[in-house]
Amino acid sequence: MKVALVLEYDGQGYCGWQKQPARPSVQSELENALSHIACQSIRTVAAGRTDAGVHALYQVVHFETNVARPMTAWVRGVNALVSPALSVLWAGEVPHDFHARYSANGRTYVYRLLNRPVRPAVLQGKVGWIHDPLDLRKMQAASEWLVGEHDFSTFRSAECQAKSAVRQIHKLEITQQGPLLTFELHANAFLQHMVRNIVGSLVYIGKGRYSTEWIQMILDKRDRALAAPTFSPDGLYLAGVHYPDIWHLPTIKALHTSIS
Amino acid sequence: MKVALVLEYDGQGYCGWQKQPARPSVQSELENALSHIACQSIRTVAAGRTDAGVHALYQVVHFETNVARPMTAWVRGVNALVSPALSVLWAGEVPHDFHARYSANGRTYVYRLLNRPVRPAVLQGKVGWIHDPLDLRKMQAASEWLVGEHDFSTFRSAECQAKSAVRQIHKLEITQQGPLLTFELHANAFLQHMVRNIVGSLVYIGKGRYSTEWIQMILDKRDRALAAPTFSPDGLYLAGVHYPDIWHLPTIKALHTSIS
Repeated sequence: MKVALVLEYDGQGYCGWQKQPARPSVQSELENALSHIACQSIRTVAAGRTDAGVHALYQVVHFETNVARPMTAWVRGVNALVSPALSVLWAGEVPHDFHARYSANGRTYVYRLLNRPVRPAVLQGKVGWIHDPLDLRKMQAASEWLVGEHDFSTFRSAECQAKSAVRQIHKLEITQQGPLLTFELHANAFLQHMVRNIVGSLVYIGKGRYSTEWIQMILDKRDRALAAPTFSPDGLYLAGVHYPDIWHLPTIKALHTSIS
Repeated sequence: MKVALVLEYDGQGYCGWQKQPARPSVQSELENALSHIACQSIRTVAAGRTDAGVHALYQVVHFETNVARPMTAWVRGVNALVSPALSVLWAGEVPHDFHARYSANGRTYVYRLLNRPVRPAVLQGKVGWIHDPLDLRKMQAASEWLVGEHDFSTFRSAECQAKSAVRQIHKLEITQQGPLLTFELHANAFLQHMVRNIVGSLVYIGKGRYSTEWIQMILDKRDRALAAPTFSPDGLYLAGVHYPDIWHLPTIKALHTSIS
């Protein structure tokens, strides 16, 4: 049978999703716990391979197993074995042709940026930080250039292995609550470091280094060297993986149903 | 001269505000850094002595010194010496009769409670958690009984050293955002464990163990044994200390002025 899980994790203590020799990864911690419960080796596939320090509010993985366990074993059983930085939010059986990565038709990332003179303390590791005053409206105006289907070569990392750099951003919204800016990006898929490179470039505009039109210029040039340096992973959250309804995965809202 | 500081800290790694032998406290970490910068021993007095694990978004302390330093030394200098869990947000000279604790005429505490089936991961240590579904409206109705001037003996800890248990709650508001409940309490002052005991008792009502009128009954009885057990410190934040305008302390809003 094939089982899908929805995960939340704090990326601060991990080298990222993917297993690496002698380093703590989300994947190895999760697979160890699943294998313990299954009494057999379990391998998982994730919707998105988050980098070191990047968090997930809604990551999806799948695995195959021939042992029968109640779904609660894959939730509460795993949560009892892994560190407090990782929680399985949901487990459910899925058809054999479901694939956590390839069945997804959209992802949502959120970047949280603290904009104040002094570095974060309570939110240390959970937000990016910039002390220069930012012009929110300029950043919002610039972000509109990025919505739609574009070649995002300017914002991909040098190591990005995707064949095509064309992606479709459905939504790029920047909101403010006190000193905290939230960038919400919804796209069919993302290139490596794409969100952090976009946020870094919008911050350049926000602090007045470039005009809003600069973002369109660098997007058109398709040259990574023109964009801002990759922004800190601290504020980045994989906040949603979206699937066609036929797969019946729960929305993040449906996972949070305790409050009446 | 007398200097006041506004602090933010993550309480997770500390035994609380107050110095204790051989345990990491906010006070000892701060005083070590201040003493280093002043080249003399500095002692601080805080507005509120937060317990182990309790966070502060706006804690106020004062200290006296006869050395002259630019105010930025007390902010950036200290922040360069202390752990990332502690940030000085502001420093300013205050009149000699200012006292961080006795000049304050109000405090705001916030309790953040995650209400969902599965334990927190990203917010581990930063929120309380309860998996039973809570009835928000019942909790809101019950909380109205607590607003105003009352003897809060029912909600004080056995070790509380305050002479009188009479306090005035100006505001007790419970709001919801997804699975996160926020309790905001504003009072002239608080007894030891008062917020955590109130939250615990409101949660009893929210999960249907008692009716909304129960809170009035136990308040009237002035008997600590009747209230719920002290709730976890994880979700508790000292969110504001309020002073008469004559002292010219910045509001938390004024400290977050980077965003234009």
